[in-house]
This record gives sequence, C-alpha cells and structure tokens, in this order.
Amino acid sequence: MEDHSDMTSVEKILKNDRFAKHVGIKLLEVSDGYAKAEMEIGDQHLNGLNMVHGAAIFSVADLAFAAAVNSHGVDAVAINMTVAFINTVRSGKLTAEAREISLNRKLGTYLISVTDDAGNLVANLQTTAYRKTPKK
Amino acid sequence: MEDHSDMTSVEKILKNDRFAKHVGIKLLEVSDGYAKAEMEIGDQHLNGLNMVHGAAIFSVADLAFAAAVNSHGVDAVAINMTVAFINTVRSGKLTAEAREISLNRKLGTYLISVTDDAGNLVANLQTTAYRKTPKK
Amino acid sequence: MEDHSDMTSVEKILKNDRFAKHVGIKLLEVSDGYAKAEMEIGDQHLNGLNMVHGAAIFSVADLAFAAAVNSHGVDAVAINMTVAFINTVRSGKLTAEAREISLNRKLGTYLISVTDDAGNLVANLQTTAYRKTPKK
Amino acid sequence: MEDHSDMTSVEKILKNDRFAKHVGIKLLEVSDGYAKAEMEIGDQHLNGLNMVHGAAIFSVADLAFAAAVNSHGVDAVAINMTVAFINTVRSGKLTAEAREISLNRKLGTYLISVTDDAGNLVANLQTTAYRKTPKK
Repeated sequence: MEDHSDMTSVEKILKNDRFAKHVGIKLLEVSDGYAKAEMEIGDQHLNGLNMVHGAAIFSVADLAFAAAVNSHGVDAVAINMTVAFINTVRSGKLTAEAREISLNRKLGTYLISVTDDAGNLVANLQTTAYRKTPKK
Repeated sequence: MEDHSDMTSVEKILKNDRFAKHVGIKLLEVSDGYAKAEMEIGDQHLNGLNMVHGAAIFSVADLAFAAAVNSHGVDAVAINMTVAFINTVRSGKLTAEAREISLNRKLGTYLISVTDDAGNLVANLQTTAYRKTPKK
Repeated sequence: MEDHSDMTSVEKILKNDRFAKHVGIKLLEVSDGYAKAEMEIGDQHLNGLNMVHGAAIFSVADLAFAAAVNSHGVDAVAINMTVAFINTVRSGKLTAEAREISLNRKLGTYLISVTDDAGNLVANLQTTAYRKTPKK
Repeated sequence: MEDHSDMTSVEKILKNDRFAKHVGIKLLEVSDGYAKAEMEIGDQHLNGLNMVHGAAIFSVADLAFAAAVNSHGVDAVAINMTVAFINTVRSGKLTAEAREISLNRKLGTYLISVTDDAGNLVANLQTTAYRKTPKK
C-alpha cells in the first residue's frame, strides 16, 4: 500500500478490520480524501444466481470509503450510504475508488465507484460521513 | 424457516447464496413481500474500532430484502439501496426485517430495519428493486 | 393547524417559509417527531408530461419533514434525503406525512410518505437530519 | 440554450414544464447525457431561516437531470434520487450540472452537482432513471 498521508486513524481503523479480512478486501492506496481498494472475486462472494452479491460489492466500496474519510486523522463514520447497482459481475477483481467531494468540520461527502476488470461500472455510491470531534 | 409463500424464486436465490453463508446470515421467515433474517455477531463481523462493520449490517439487511423481493416468484434485483446507520453495536445478534411498501410490474419499494437484541434501531434502509420480465 | 408541541422552532421555520408559500404547501398538523402537510395540485405543479413534477412532490415531503424534525425545539436541517418515486399523479391533492424513526443528540432519521387522494403511495423518502447544538 | 442533441424528447418535456417556470429555473445547455440549468435566487426561494430552501435546490438539480436523461430521445423518469445537502446559500445564482455515468436499455445513473456563484458545492445528487420502452 502506498502511504501518502497521516495514517494514524486509517491504520487504527483498517489494521484490525476483521470483516474486511474475512471478506477478502485489500487496501491498495490512500491519500488525502482518496482511497482505492480491491477484492479478488471468489466463490464465497457469489449469490444464488452466481453473480457477485450486492453486499460484497458494498463491502469493497465501504472499505475504500473508510480509508478515504479517515485519511485526515479524525475519526469518522458513515451515516448515510446510497448505492446504485449498475452492472452485474461474476469473476475477476473488483476495484473501488473513493473520492471526497466536500469536507467541513463535522460532515464529509464521498463518491465511490466500483469497477470490474474491463473498467465497467458495477456500482456507484454517494456517502455522507460524520466526523467525531477530536478529544483534547 | 417458516414458509408462507411460493418459494421457487426465494429458494433458488438463497439456497446457493455463498456470501450469506460466508458472512453467517440466516433467513428466519418469509411471506408475501416480507422477510426476516438474523446474524449472530462474531469476531469476523467487527471493524477496527470493535464495532460491527457497516458492510456486515448491510449484508443482513440485504438478505432480508432479497427474500422479500423474490417472495412473489419473479426474479428481482436491487437497483438502489440507501442505508442510514443509526446506532453502533458490538455484540449479540442483528435482526433484519424487510417490508414491501409498493409493487408494480417492473419496480418494488422496500423498507428494511436492522435492530439489536435490545430492539434499538441499528440501521434503516430504503430500497428500489427491478423485476425481470418472466420468460415464457 | 393542530398544535401539540413546543412550536418555537417550527413556527420560526415555517411561518416565514416563502418557498412553501410560493409552491402552495400547507402544514396541517405537527406533534413530537411527526408532521403532516398537503398540496392542492394546480397547473403550476405539472411537468411537460402533465404529471406532478418530481420536485413538487419532493417539496411537500420536505415541508412535512422540516416540521417534524423541528418539532422538538432544536434547529435541525436535512443532510441527506433519498426519494423513491413510485406512482405518478395528475390532479387532486398530495398529502405528506413525516415520522421520526430515530433521534439522538446530533442526528435524526425520518420516513416520509406522499400519497394521493386515493391513498396510493406517490413517493417515499428516507432522510437524515443534523441537529445544531443549542447555543446557551 | 445551446443545442447539441436530438431535442425531441427534451423539448417535449421542458417546453411545457410549468413547475420549472413557476420556480424560475432555466435550462442553459444540453448534450448527450449532460445538461446544465440555473436558478437566479429570489425571495420566493427562501425558507424561514433566509436560506435557499432544500426543495428549491432539489428543483434546479431535477431540471438538469430531466434534460440529461431525456437527451437521448427516449422518455425516462427518475425512480430514485439521493440528495446530500452540503453548504447553505442565501443569494446569487445556483447552477446545476447533470452527468450520466451509466446507461443501458432500461436504466441510467446520473450525478448532479449544484454550485453557488463562488463555485462552492451546495448539494450533490445521485439518481437512477428508468427508461420507458419506445412504442413502435
């Protein structure tokens, strides 16, 4: 993983993220207000129709978001995520990129794209994050 | 699981849902336009802050939704899901209930609540589903 | 309008709401975490296809939400609203009902239904509100 | 208005859009999968706190979306819109730009930004549209 930013908060949040490990998601890159994650598609990600499960797609997007929102070293959580499911995918790798489009003292807004190996848009998310006031 | 409805489509979709199995989600009940699922919280569901991961919360909601939307025997998929994360949770069990609030030939709308053992609302989702035209 | 609650904040917000007046929306009822508004459909609410405009439907829902979220006497604003457009409508009256499903110190969650004269669901919204810290 | 595309559907939809006229929204530009609209802020757009009403912000975004989604000459409607309200605004002009990020036979996905005169992001929307099957 490339490291361009204050990683205190990101490290704390991701190093011990057992759900991301269980699902098989890796963080590739993080910088100020940006992060990229990927998930190698395996049998455990498929739903009953042999497509990657919506919640697995959500999971890789959520990890990219978590890294981007916490890249500033202030603890933050999603309060609202809207996901548009656009194309189905069955194999290969999913790549999620999260980009910050606004940030103020308490709230931030993020767009996250999830694409397949061919660059097709699998899902797009718009997310609002709430930043906890740092304790002195 | 109680069985109140035509299960053809639900069975097909959930029986072979490897992601739901991998995450540890069980379907408890399904009837016309309604379903209930649960997830026993384990270490593998936690994020780096020792709270249940947003994507794990989403996953149990998504399974309840999938069962409710497919309860009518017509294949359907989520095209849009909005999740409001309301309370954090660290242990016990999550219960998701999906309820249909509208249904027409091509689209359906669902509300899904996720609650903890004490009945606190952990998340609430509003979802739009797209129904595939049955092949003759 | 029936008055069941501390109206300080609601009154301040709605009495001088020029957009609601311009669009022709009336507040019918407000109580703790609940409000009801209506809009008599006129020619000015129609889009190019002679249906009530999505933004007009949103407007009546937004007023009910604003009254419900401010019913507690603490200034609050929407930070996120998701609207599912369900049925079209061309004439008669729209009724919006907003109900609080969660409330803590800084955030609240609301569901708002918009129905036509026959009781059909025209739209449903899920909204997250941010409450400003009262100044001493 | 600059005209870069097949305007049949856009013209039909916007020429007779009485709500957009009533609210005071102008379409500035439309091309394939893109549109730009603006609203000169007047007293009639303000809420009780003297800020531009959320529903007025939604209205200008919705018109840009409607022009973008109908730019292809196939009737389409929003089925889901999520708006994140980011900064408040009190005067000047609002500019909305809608951009298509995906399009298939039945569904399209759009991002819409609303900015003020200083270029600040006032709101951002993610929208799913449903395209009606053209009648032969």
